[in-house]
Amino acid sequence: MTLTDDFMEDRDRRERTGLDECILCAYKSVDQITRIVGQIFEEGRRALLTRLSADQYSKLPKETRAVISYDALSCTAIVGEPITLNRELLVAIVSGGTSDVSVVAEAAKTLEYYGYVASIFQDIGVAGLWRVVDAAPALQNFPIVIAVAGMDAALPTVLAGLIPSAVIAVPTSVGYGVTAGGTAALNSLLSSCVPGITVVNIDNGFGAASAAVRMLNAIRTS
Amino acid sequence: MTLTDDFMEDRDRRERTGLDECILCAYKSVDQITRIVGQIFEEGRRALLTRLSADQYSKLPKETRAVISYDALSCTAIVGEPITLNRELLVAIVSGGTSDVSVVAEAAKTLEYYGYVASIFQDIGVAGLWRVVDAAPALQNFPIVIAVAGMDAALPTVLAGLIPSAVIAVPTSVGYGVTAGGTAALNSLLSSCVPGITVVNIDNGFGAASAAVRMLNAIRTS
Amino acid sequence: MTLTDDFMEDRDRRERTGLDECILCAYKSVDQITRIVGQIFEEGRRALLTRLSADQYSKLPKETRAVISYDALSCTAIVGEPITLNRELLVAIVSGGTSDVSVVAEAAKTLEYYGYVASIFQDIGVAGLWRVVDAAPALQNFPIVIAVAGMDAALPTVLAGLIPSAVIAVPTSVGYGVTAGGTAALNSLLSSCVPGITVVNIDNGFGAASAAVRMLNAIRTS
Amino acid sequence: MTLTDDFMEDRDRRERTGLDECILCAYKSVDQITRIVGQIFEEGRRALLTRLSADQYSKLPKETRAVISYDALSCTAIVGEPITLNRELLVAIVSGGTSDVSVVAEAAKTLEYYGYVASIFQDIGVAGLWRVVDAAPALQNFPIVIAVAGMDAALPTVLAGLIPSAVIAVPTSVGYGVTAGGTAALNSLLSSCVPGITVVNIDNGFGAASAAVRMLNAIRTS
Amino acid sequence: MTLTDDFMEDRDRRERTGLDECILCAYKSVDQITRIVGQIFEEGRRALLTRLSADQYSKLPKETRAVISYDALSCTAIVGEPITLNRELLVAIVSGGTSDVSVVAEAAKTLEYYGYVASIFQDIGVAGLWRVVDAAPALQNFPIVIAVAGMDAALPTVLAGLIPSAVIAVPTSVGYGVTAGGTAALNSLLSSCVPGITVVNIDNGFGAASAAVRMLNAIRTS
Amino acid sequence: MTLTDDFMEDRDRRERTGLDECILCAYKSVDQITRIVGQIFEEGRRALLTRLSADQYSKLPKETRAVISYDALSCTAIVGEPITLNRELLVAIVSGGTSDVSVVAEAAKTLEYYGYVASIFQDIGVAGLWRVVDAAPALQNFPIVIAVAGMDAALPTVLAGLIPSAVIAVPTSVGYGVTAGGTAALNSLLSSCVPGITVVNIDNGFGAASAAVRMLNAIRTS
Amino acid sequence: MTLTDDFMEDRDRRERTGLDECILCAYKSVDQITRIVGQIFEEGRRALLTRLSADQYSKLPKETRAVISYDALSCTAIVGEPITLNRELLVAIVSGGTSDVSVVAEAAKTLEYYGYVASIFQDIGVAGLWRVVDAAPALQNFPIVIAVAGMDAALPTVLAGLIPSAVIAVPTSVGYGVTAGGTAALNSLLSSCVPGITVVNIDNGFGAASAAVRMLNAIRTS
Amino acid sequence: MTLTDDFMEDRDRRERTGLDECILCAYKSVDQITRIVGQIFEEGRRALLTRLSADQYSKLPKETRAVISYDALSCTAIVGEPITLNRELLVAIVSGGTSDVSVVAEAAKTLEYYGYVASIFQDIGVAGLWRVVDAAPALQNFPIVIAVAGMDAALPTVLAGLIPSAVIAVPTSVGYGVTAGGTAALNSLLSSCVPGITVVNIDNGFGAASAAVRMLNAIRTS
Repeated sequence: MTLTDDFMEDRDRRERTGLDECILCAYKSVDQITRIVGQIFEEGRRALLTRLSADQYSKLPKETRAVISYDALSCTAIVGEPITLNRELLVAIVSGGTSDVSVVAEAAKTLEYYGYVASIFQDIGVAGLWRVVDAAPALQNFPIVIAVAGMDAALPTVLAGLIPSAVIAVPTSVGYGVTAGGTAALNSLLSSCVPGITVVNIDNGFGAASAAVRMLNAIRTS
Repeated sequence: MTLTDDFMEDRDRRERTGLDECILCAYKSVDQITRIVGQIFEEGRRALLTRLSADQYSKLPKETRAVISYDALSCTAIVGEPITLNRELLVAIVSGGTSDVSVVAEAAKTLEYYGYVASIFQDIGVAGLWRVVDAAPALQNFPIVIAVAGMDAALPTVLAGLIPSAVIAVPTSVGYGVTAGGTAALNSLLSSCVPGITVVNIDNGFGAASAAVRMLNAIRTS
Repeated sequence: MTLTDDFMEDRDRRERTGLDECILCAYKSVDQITRIVGQIFEEGRRALLTRLSADQYSKLPKETRAVISYDALSCTAIVGEPITLNRELLVAIVSGGTSDVSVVAEAAKTLEYYGYVASIFQDIGVAGLWRVVDAAPALQNFPIVIAVAGMDAALPTVLAGLIPSAVIAVPTSVGYGVTAGGTAALNSLLSSCVPGITVVNIDNGFGAASAAVRMLNAIRTS
Repeated sequence: MTLTDDFMEDRDRRERTGLDECILCAYKSVDQITRIVGQIFEEGRRALLTRLSADQYSKLPKETRAVISYDALSCTAIVGEPITLNRELLVAIVSGGTSDVSVVAEAAKTLEYYGYVASIFQDIGVAGLWRVVDAAPALQNFPIVIAVAGMDAALPTVLAGLIPSAVIAVPTSVGYGVTAGGTAALNSLLSSCVPGITVVNIDNGFGAASAAVRMLNAIRTS
Repeated sequence: MTLTDDFMEDRDRRERTGLDECILCAYKSVDQITRIVGQIFEEGRRALLTRLSADQYSKLPKETRAVISYDALSCTAIVGEPITLNRELLVAIVSGGTSDVSVVAEAAKTLEYYGYVASIFQDIGVAGLWRVVDAAPALQNFPIVIAVAGMDAALPTVLAGLIPSAVIAVPTSVGYGVTAGGTAALNSLLSSCVPGITVVNIDNGFGAASAAVRMLNAIRTS
Repeated sequence: MTLTDDFMEDRDRRERTGLDECILCAYKSVDQITRIVGQIFEEGRRALLTRLSADQYSKLPKETRAVISYDALSCTAIVGEPITLNRELLVAIVSGGTSDVSVVAEAAKTLEYYGYVASIFQDIGVAGLWRVVDAAPALQNFPIVIAVAGMDAALPTVLAGLIPSAVIAVPTSVGYGVTAGGTAALNSLLSSCVPGITVVNIDNGFGAASAAVRMLNAIRTS
Repeated sequence: MTLTDDFMEDRDRRERTGLDECILCAYKSVDQITRIVGQIFEEGRRALLTRLSADQYSKLPKETRAVISYDALSCTAIVGEPITLNRELLVAIVSGGTSDVSVVAEAAKTLEYYGYVASIFQDIGVAGLWRVVDAAPALQNFPIVIAVAGMDAALPTVLAGLIPSAVIAVPTSVGYGVTAGGTAALNSLLSSCVPGITVVNIDNGFGAASAAVRMLNAIRTS
Repeated sequence: MTLTDDFMEDRDRRERTGLDECILCAYKSVDQITRIVGQIFEEGRRALLTRLSADQYSKLPKETRAVISYDALSCTAIVGEPITLNRELLVAIVSGGTSDVSVVAEAAKTLEYYGYVASIFQDIGVAGLWRVVDAAPALQNFPIVIAVAGMDAALPTVLAGLIPSAVIAVPTSVGYGVTAGGTAALNSLLSSCVPGITVVNIDNGFGAASAAVRMLNAIRTS
């Protein structure tokens, strides 16, 4: 049996889809991550690593750590050079609580990897409705709003009723009892009484940002 | 085997709990309902029947129909004399959509049975946030607000963030896909980011009103 | 109790969000629908009705039927005048099976209501992979692709790996056993190994089209 | 990217709802908690922290620990001065087993934060029915009873059949097999055959107490 | 293909297990039932048919109907001669509501098939606790108590805390919202805080009675 | 909008996979089925229709009915000529109850469509274990055994412990309470303590037979 | 607040139900257990502690450990003197795999606490059917058989088809994938095709033994 | 009580089923594993141990470790001599991501235990469709393909649409949110739109390989 950990890259994904092959590290061994990063670095390419825990990062060989830039809050790392950032007001990321900060950060870092700077609006939960209402005039200028929300996930619904932007909602897993795991938030979002909200998997800041990049590609080529 | 359909009444429930024994008709045969109504009527007592469908009602014997007052919208009926109504602003019932009207009606009729007139605020869904904000000043005068909400059930959350009243939320089963059956609404309500909302079973307008009666008993005796 | 079926319209929703208040008819009585349509028609406004079954439609009063244009395949109806259609290649709707045709139709009719003509690609299931591969070159010209898929919902994943467009996936409820109800399709889509797919509720063609309209608004104003 | 952990307070929540903004610490970092407590303390306000584990507490900086009063049993802490306690018999907290003690304590501490002393009735499970029956005469004097119950959660049902008080039930997550996580208890409570029980999320002693405060506000202003 | 509907009887089941092979009719065609009854009758054996709906019964051929005794309340029928009934106080069947009467009847008829007369205690729900307490002295004389309970299924728990009998609990599917289908009742029973309750499938009066017959066999041979 | 019901055939599926494109009729309109059958017939090809209900069949136009051979028990129909049948002992279909007969029939008809005659062993449930033990010597001569089982689905496990054949298990949806819908049977099969059982979707006799055809192709070409 | 950990004993439970109040230690602190044991010991009574982990046991004070007899395999401990054991063949405990040994041991120790010695039949899984068939003649002499089974839980079904004893089945949580947690085993048992099996909660060896004690009480007094 | 950990072997399983009794170590103590291995070794037999974690392995006595060959990647170990390997192209194992490597390895080692060398195709996820298409010509030469797939599990579906082989799909538990635990992958596979895929439990590489051995036995004896 010659079972190996070699990594067969999906080489032309960028050309086909406008998105690179990103590496989900959560279920990979340190050895696997090391090998993948090494291969990408040697070929002079760029890549985004997600769900790279501080613990995994600390166990990577020195040489591997040297060729990636790690961000602990978002658990992401970038292989290769950063690209020039577009600072237009294209994407806002909105969240209701400080508990969701790592999901917000994962979305922001993914956008940064693709060259976009997101504007971040934190702590505007619906419990203090005036915070949402106050933010709405600023938010309606963004073509795309990523709304990160746990518990009852009412924020994306309230927000989408106030602005015309494309709203990509990310349910989060924060909470206990029926709230735990994020299914209540996910189903609440899929059931939203405001039309036109789209949803990604629980805690998937990376996926929401990737969807935003697809839309931004569409905007730029239209 | 002497299996009978005889009805053993819980005679002193009113004295113990302030609530009468109400009859859930949904899973009873027309014969069973007839016998129960007959027994209550003969003893000169009052009772509330819930979930009595138009079809069941139409199949009841003429004499049974003669001694109850049926309301088709709420699927409730009352045996016995109505009592004098208290028209103080004690309970408001709020709902977001015309689809929830039968649940609203069941709650209102249950309160009416116990002598309270509820003020009803319909069609104030969060999709048009101004409708909720406009209603808040009036609603904060009610000690108790029953909030009926389906789909993402964001209304009770937004409302409870605006008013000091006791909020009893009733999730409804209206919708399709993950919304169907009301579990998404129920879990959203149990996960509410605004503290102090209490919840009853899906579509249980009767239960919410019964809880309100317990609170009103508490208010009156305090 | 003065419980009414009156309809409080969310009047400026179009101005706030770019979307009209649409009427979900599935859980409304014929009387409620009649009243709502009448009110909209009298005020000279436009509106989209969804999930209006053939049976409900046939029971509407003649005068109501006269002021709406009904489409049986999509179970939608439009109150008010059609608007000039934009025939640019902006949105494609893709589906894998003839069983999903009503969901495809609901999405297409919703887009038409807002003035967009969708290009429809039917019967390109992954079981015959060449059909997907053959369609990809045409599809990559559309900024937005709505992908309708039931059962294992592999189509949106395979497609999103081939094209750079924004992909909005609609799981459908077609099937039996674990497939029934569409949860398997929904969870499969939320778990997609291709990044950047967004998802709406099961069978929610209307929601997918509404999300597309939000994106088209973003494209036009960017 | 300027993602921060700054805390935007919902300043007038007390005025709107009668409840302060409380801080759920379970999903926050020690740094986030430190910053939030510091901000509240500096502004001379009061706040309740919940789900602050002994481990989190021990890792807070000395200066932070100095300005809060921590209670290990309930995992709560209070920032700011205690207020004068109302020792009237307004709220009773009832539980069936010693395993539920932390939920009971969270409810009691939340009430204490708002100035109410709860009377606690422990260990009156329905397995020894005489204990419930014996407690009933005392309990019926309280306008509000918070009933904490895990496993089959029969206690709130039996109790509510014996007393007229408003009953707020808190399911707990104690148990194994189908009992684990508290869903069996939650659904049992939502299905109660005694009318007028309201329910909050599993293990949510804080939520039950917050609902009690809303009712007490209602009682006092009525 | 020679697919037939022939019925291969498990001939010596009585000898092995003390129970006959009973026929669950719910998912069988009228033709299948006819053939099975005919075969049993011709061989001069006895058998119990369960879940034979009134509609199925009415469609059976006259000759088939002639050789079975049908009971509409329990949806059971017996092929063959009745056996002498044992009228000792061996099994009590207890239920909380008139809605569960068909499950009670199925259990009673199954016991009757095996020659035992059950004593039936109806309408002793825990909402009126005195009814349970009043029945306890009589019930503790029965070695076996079958307790039929829907909704929160608190009755078997309260009862088992009062009597030493073997308690076999049957959850029922009566109810709506989270109560619907009987899962809440089932899980509540499996989570009972009173030890020694055993459980059978939802609505399975037949199964509970069969378990009682196994115990009665054990009692008689011990 | 030019939404059509045209059917884009996956023309070379037979060449690629050894299986034809079969038509699942359950979610198709009579018009769709008519058009599909017509197209296949005109092109002189063969096809299998599954889940074609007696009601759907009776509504097909006479000309359509004329070109298909319908089997009511299995709800299948074949377009095109039958092929010569291979009567070797290659596949056995085993089931435990008369209630599963339509699933057994669907599997048998699918095999027949591909030219294989299945041997059918009915009514050998594990409740009468001797029936399984008696059948084992005959069954071990078949390279492939399709085992159809509902309820606890113990039959495939017991059987697979007695024979060396490839065992494809089909859970069925027959039953009530937790048994209803077939999930209990499905999960029981996936959890089997005997290694080497494979599983298909609930009630999917067609899928099991298709898997058998893949194996038979493998056997013949090996 | 005077929240205490005092333990209010259900003093006459033995007289009412034939069972003592047993102490589930899994969710109790070491302090709580110490206090409960002390109180029982001082009053000279007997009690059974269950789910007392080796870790909890080792942390109990020396004086507490001195007055209980701990069994690590079953995680049980007994306070008070052992009673004379009845060695008649009354209860057999049967299991299919070595992984279930702790559940078997909990049942056996509970019976021992009540003075009964169980006969244990291990490792007779249905994968090796001959082991079940070989054990059947011995097992049919026991009035009560506790059958412990995980995974597909086919053992109690096969066994109950071979013997006339009362069969109490205990599903176990052993396994991975859909098997994990024991729900597949539980539902399989509730769906058993052999009539008369009763079920207790997952891993609840204590509950099964308690049910057996109820039956043994019934046998002895009958 | 004489509860032991002795191991009753299913001695003639190989003769009956062509498969040995394999030992699932995940839920066994080190003592139990030691005893089982010792017994097998002393009797000079072969056996496969699965789910033997590195931690368990390291705690086994030296003498036990000496008589088994352990593979850390697959967590398997073999007692007894290896057998001559058949290197024909009979089974391919295909997977989409490096995260699934341990499941792939378990399947490969199980096949190796039975004397078959599997060909392994790693990293051919559908996100880069060309990788699947490129592999198809090689894969169609294998009579059996084991397809290991997590997340949306689209790989087995796409593959089965391209090749005639028997496809045994193994869902994996890799992922987060709705993906976690593997249920989304499992249900996606059971819902596959390509006919003839069979499925085993989540992460059950051993089960898939065992099913392959059954098929290979069938092929060799046909």
